Amino acid sequence: MSWLAGYGNLDDQENDNLGIDWVLQYEFSDIDQAQAVSEFRALINDLTEAGLRVQVRHGHGSSLLVCLRVPRDQLGKMIHQSRMKDWLYCLIHTLPEGDENTNAHAETAAEELRSVYHAVTWGKNLGGAGITPNHGKWKNVTASFPLHDQDACSQLLAQWNRKTVLNTEDLDAIRAIFGEKVAFYFAFIQCYSLFLIVPAVLGIIAWLYLGAYSIINGAALCVWCVVFVEYWKIREHDLALRWGVKGVGSLKVNRPQYHWEKEVKDPVTGQMMKVFPGWKQFLRQLLLIPFASIAAVALGSLIVATFASEVFISEVYNGPLKGYLEFVPTILFSLSLPAITSFLTSIATRLTKYENYRTQDLFDLAQTQKTFVMNFITSFLPTILTAYIYVPFGKSIVPHLDLLRRAGLLSAELASHQDFEVDTSRFQQEVIYLSMTAQVVGFGEEIVLPYVKHVLWQKWRDYRDRQFGLTRKRSFSTATDLLLIDVPEEAKFLKRVRSETDAEEYKVEDDILEMCVQFGYLALFGVAWPLVPLGFLLNNWLELRGDFFKLTLECQRPPPIRADSIGPSLLGLDFLAWMGTLSTAAIVHLYRGPMSEVKLWSLLLTVFLAEQAYLALRFVAATALQKIFSDTLRTEEAQRYSVRKSFMEATLAARSGSPGSPGSRVRQRVRFHERVNVYGTSENEQSSENSDGSAPPSTEKPQDEVLRGSDREAEFWNGLSCDAADAGVKMIRALSANKAGDELKWTKEA
Amino acid sequence: MSWLAGYGNLDDQENDNLGIDWVLQYEFSDIDQAQAVSEFRALINDLTEAGLRVQVRHGHGSSLLVCLRVPRDQLGKMIHQSRMKDWLYCLIHTLPEGDENTNAHAETAAEELRSVYHAVTWGKNLGGAGITPNHGKWKNVTASFPLHDQDACSQLLAQWNRKTVLNTEDLDAIRAIFGEKVAFYFAFIQCYSLFLIVPAVLGIIAWLYLGAYSIINGAALCVWCVVFVEYWKIREHDLALRWGVKGVGSLKVNRPQYHWEKEVKDPVTGQMMKVFPGWKQFLRQLLLIPFASIAAVALGSLIVATFASEVFISEVYNGPLKGYLEFVPTILFSLSLPAITSFLTSIATRLTKYENYRTQDLFDLAQTQKTFVMNFITSFLPTILTAYIYVPFGKSIVPHLDLLRRAGLLSAELASHQDFEVDTSRFQQEVIYLSMTAQVVGFGEEIVLPYVKHVLWQKWRDYRDRQFGLTRKRSFSTATDLLLIDVPEEAKFLKRVRSETDAEEYKVEDDILEMCVQFGYLALFGVAWPLVPLGFLLNNWLELRGDFFKLTLECQRPPPIRADSIGPSLLGLDFLAWMGTLSTAAIVHLYRGPMSEVKLWSLLLTVFLAEQAYLALRFVAATALQKIFSDTLRTEEAQRYSVRKSFMEATLAARSGSPGSPGSRVRQRVRFHERVNVYGTSENEQSSENSDGSAPPSTEKPQDEVLRGSDREAEFWNGLSCDAADAGVKMIRALSANKAGDELKWTKEA
Repeated sequence: MSWLAGYGNLDDQENDNLGIDWVLQYEFSDIDQAQAVSEFRALINDLTEAGLRVQVRHGHGSSLLVCLRVPRDQLGKMIHQSRMKDWLYCLIHTLPEGDENTNAHAETAAEELRSVYHAVTWGKNLGGAGITPNHGKWKNVTASFPLHDQDACSQLLAQWNRKTVLNTEDLDAIRAIFGEKVAFYFAFIQCYSLFLIVPAVLGIIAWLYLGAYSIINGAALCVWCVVFVEYWKIREHDLALRWGVKGVGSLKVNRPQYHWEKEVKDPVTGQMMKVFPGWKQFLRQLLLIPFASIAAVALGSLIVATFASEVFISEVYNGPLKGYLEFVPTILFSLSLPAITSFLTSIATRLTKYENYRTQDLFDLAQTQKTFVMNFITSFLPTILTAYIYVPFGKSIVPHLDLLRRAGLLSAELASHQDFEVDTSRFQQEVIYLSMTAQVVGFGEEIVLPYVKHVLWQKWRDYRDRQFGLTRKRSFSTATDLLLIDVPEEAKFLKRVRSETDAEEYKVEDDILEMCVQFGYLALFGVAWPLVPLGFLLNNWLELRGDFFKLTLECQRPPPIRADSIGPSLLGLDFLAWMGTLSTAAIVHLYRGPMSEVKLWSLLLTVFLAEQAYLALRFVAATALQKIFSDTLRTEEAQRYSVRKSFMEATLAARSGSPGSPGSRVRQRVRFHERVNVYGTSENEQSSENSDGSAPPSTEKPQDEVLRGSDREAEFWNGLSCDAADAGVKMIRALSANKAGDELKWTKEA
Repeated sequence: MSWLAGYGNLDDQENDNLGIDWVLQYEFSDIDQAQAVSEFRALINDLTEAGLRVQVRHGHGSSLLVCLRVPRDQLGKMIHQSRMKDWLYCLIHTLPEGDENTNAHAETAAEELRSVYHAVTWGKNLGGAGITPNHGKWKNVTASFPLHDQDACSQLLAQWNRKTVLNTEDLDAIRAIFGEKVAFYFAFIQCYSLFLIVPAVLGIIAWLYLGAYSIINGAALCVWCVVFVEYWKIREHDLALRWGVKGVGSLKVNRPQYHWEKEVKDPVTGQMMKVFPGWKQFLRQLLLIPFASIAAVALGSLIVATFASEVFISEVYNGPLKGYLEFVPTILFSLSLPAITSFLTSIATRLTKYENYRTQDLFDLAQTQKTFVMNFITSFLPTILTAYIYVPFGKSIVPHLDLLRRAGLLSAELASHQDFEVDTSRFQQEVIYLSMTAQVVGFGEEIVLPYVKHVLWQKWRDYRDRQFGLTRKRSFSTATDLLLIDVPEEAKFLKRVRSETDAEEYKVEDDILEMCVQFGYLALFGVAWPLVPLGFLLNNWLELRGDFFKLTLECQRPPPIRADSIGPSLLGLDFLAWMGTLSTAAIVHLYRGPMSEVKLWSLLLTVFLAEQAYLALRFVAATALQKIFSDTLRTEEAQRYSVRKSFMEATLAARSGSPGSPGSRVRQRVRFHERVNVYGTSENEQSSENSDGSAPPSTEKPQDEVLRGSDREAEFWNGLSCDAADAGVKMIRALSANKAGDELKWTKEA
């Protein structure tokens, strides 16, 4: 058997997952022993009831690792069932072969794991174990994840190191390991980075020949943004079709937390539907508006305060310790931001829960929307303040900041604010910082720091466990002791499992959002420094690999969830492209010449015209791209057609094989109106030769066909004794002669 | 037989169509007799080759009427074939019963006629006669139409007279007689009129309490426009599903005039596709921009000239004949408009031909788009000029019009232009005229005048024919004479057929466009006079009936073409709603207070903010309406689901009936990666009882299931001698004790 040979090749036994499909962590440090025991027994009971095989090992500290395995027969059946469901919901177009008991094989690791995920998380009514980690009954189940396939990941990463650009096969590979939702993120960052080459090249040219705030560069940037967003929509659609996930949202199961108002039977399908009225949900969604306002005020005032004090210290204040004081506002802001953000996030989560979505997908979508709003404010507001408030109006606003001196609290050492001049390059400096330093810092914060933290934490854990091990030896029976000491063959493997258990969950939404924010910087402020796209391009080359590194080595393997889009971020991209057009127009208008000469009406006119240009451009781009890529988009239709075609042929063949079946000639009809049915049903069907016969069928027709209509009809159709053509020819002759005669007559009379 | 009884009730034999499905008119007044004879023979030959029955009668003047009838067997087969095709293209979800030779019955008259239409017009390769009236070989075939079903029409009209509001059943009836394309127009005008009630009521209130140019009324109007357009999109979708025409565009056959660049075999369906590249078509479509510019300049300059001379005469000129001269510009404009429009239309048609659309639908769509552009200019430009140029800037522009006096051509009788004052109420007067007088005049021009013309024309024709009849008697053999004289029983009927032959073709696009223009008036200028919607509402009540009257009595019955939308006018509605928001904001801003106090920046700001409000509102309205009507929109999905469900059940039943079939267990799989396949194929499939068994399956599992993985796997899964739950419990106890002990130790040490 080939897989045995494959096995023998493995040098490192650590990489073998020992057939474990899924791992749960049960933590009992916060509850007393009796409760832990009964909860744990219930957990094992639920899992085994759902047909899963279970093994237990101890985890770090007061926690147990429950290793799960779905028996292959059961898994094959689940995969088959899942495919049947896909077919029912039109995700695939061929009905899978086999009956209810068929064992199917997963095409990809992700498909297999998805069924495992369902076996663990779906409710008992759906045949799962109903384990919802961190929620309700199972709130002490603190982790629930599949183990990484380390060989596949390292092979993939090795492949990537040899190439600069990922192709669709690489995305397919990610999809096969991590599922479509993650694959869509990598597809997005890859597509976005490739697109970035255009503005990067243009930016270099602009940097060399045009300088900042160039109209041409600004216009090119806006066009690029719109075209990219429209192209991505098509690419996304295309990938969704390639991966067979278009419209996958409709087949997702209800969230356990979903409340429905009534159960109604669908008139068409006969399914029982758990209904929560759409209008009610919409009304609840409207709460997003006050939420966004509160978030805007809370974060906005924090940012404004920070900004104002920073400006005050750096531009007005001249007192002691200026060098240190300058950093105080930013540090205070950074310290208070997490608290405020987590407070707002908790409100957002409550709102989203209240909005009551049917599926986890919709819930995540709504939650991401709110996160997007908050991210938008924290990411863009500071730079917006600099660009549109501080630089243009700084001269009149900043002196008012000098409250302290007016209050007489500070000495007259302060510089007189009469000679205050706004540093107009401050905006550009901020943009340069955002596109260079901030990206590097962000990469470090996102990928390097957590990795170091994770490694150190593991080391500390191991040290603690060894300490426990020393104290443990004396206290229990040898049997229990054996349980608490890893078997030497398993030791290395279990160390890895424990390390993965401790790892963070991978949140693909955060990574997508990060890219959206980057796109936003480019769209909103990119015109201020032409090298911004180049900076982003270089960063993204690293980011793509860094994110994959993070996904495989720092985070738990995410459950392979299916999705047919990058989700609400798409709307965010649209919004940012729109905002970007307005912002670019305004920045170019403001910063191109001396700011004091800018007139309000001309600025407004510029922005207004830019908006119209944006709307027109988006329309044209969408139309053009859809035309150009129409072949791609036709694929689905064509597939559907071909499946129907072959099905029809099969059915017709089957039908003609049993010609005597009573249903083969359908006779029922909906009668709309008496007059429609005037021509009764003709019972003779033997005249099928007529369709290809070239002889005039009027002679071959059974004469009674018309006679059945009415006598007058029969007279009409049989009225002329000669052939229709001859009759017509005679009439043509007669009428042309007539006309000639007539004209003669008229001319004679005249 | 019930239809015989129905027949006996008919007092008027004129209403009976004598089983004629279709009528062609062959005209030969412009060609010589020999050519006419050979062409006519070819025509009859093609028709009979396609299996149609033919009868010939003489028409008015030098023309022949060719009456066609599709034998019922052939028609039934065609209808069945058409339904099979619908199924192939996913328009219907159940495969029609029967094999290739099945005779189906049409559900509606329109379905029947559609197959007749196909039999007459489709190319010979598709089994039709390939008659393309007024085109190429058949350019002397000047009319091609089905006869009206007069009973059904008069019944429908009688029904409508008893009710104020049409319901969906009435629309179904129109669809059954005239097909979906026409039904969509009536659905649109009915939906629009019902929606008009809201602004009509608001308008009355505004008229009584707020006056013209009220901000509240303007805002309400804008909201109404956006909501209406968004609602109509959903309604249209809903109707398309109800009538089973969603996505009907894809199954339409190629136009005979379509040129393709290459024939490629579709990789999925295996059909031969005639391909014309999408990007090439898009580039050609870009010619719309120069076309629109030319049309705008041509029509615009005409309008501006008319407007200027009208203003000059009415406001500046005080010379002789002023009372008459005032009308001269408008008359000149009206006289020259048709020539210019027809010139532009001919360019438009050539452009559309050049754009090379695959189907007639797409061709019509593109042509309507261009008509829309022209209509937009001629309809809205005059009022736009009044609102935004004449009234605001008249004071500085009009005196310059006084060129004549400055050229010294006119006497000093003219009033001094120093005291010229713009009549600010002129804009409102124009709007009142548009909403009242223009609608009545339009109705007369559209419906009453053509009817009178048609009747008079028929009388003149009859008179001419009688004259012919008098001269004819002497000239031919009795046999031919008999051909030229109507049989008394047929005389009345043939008179009606000749009258229908002479009638205009019904162009539903024109009627839709008319409604769009009306919507445009309301959206753009409605705020100037609050009673505009009321006027439109009353007009539309009449218009709806008038259009039906026109359709049934003044025009030929249109071929029952299918469509799933009102077409490009939908885009027009979107555009008008957007324009309307900007225009309403600007008008309210300009006309509300004294115009001299309006600042440019504040106007621009108002319009800019209005646009943002529009964008936000449209987004919210679309989201909200889709949520609220999600049930309606789900229908299609549900239908598809239910069909698949029943099909699956049937298939599974059939499969389980033949358990030994080799295809029932599928084994092929796509191998992504070696590691995925680690858990070999388990051959034993007898463990199907496990899925509902409540006993822990871990004991029932065949132990070799895991062993097949590897020795290490087997060791892991069989490693603990006791049950997993017990092992876990032991570990919990040990670890909690440990923890307690540990804590004790730490506290002791401290």
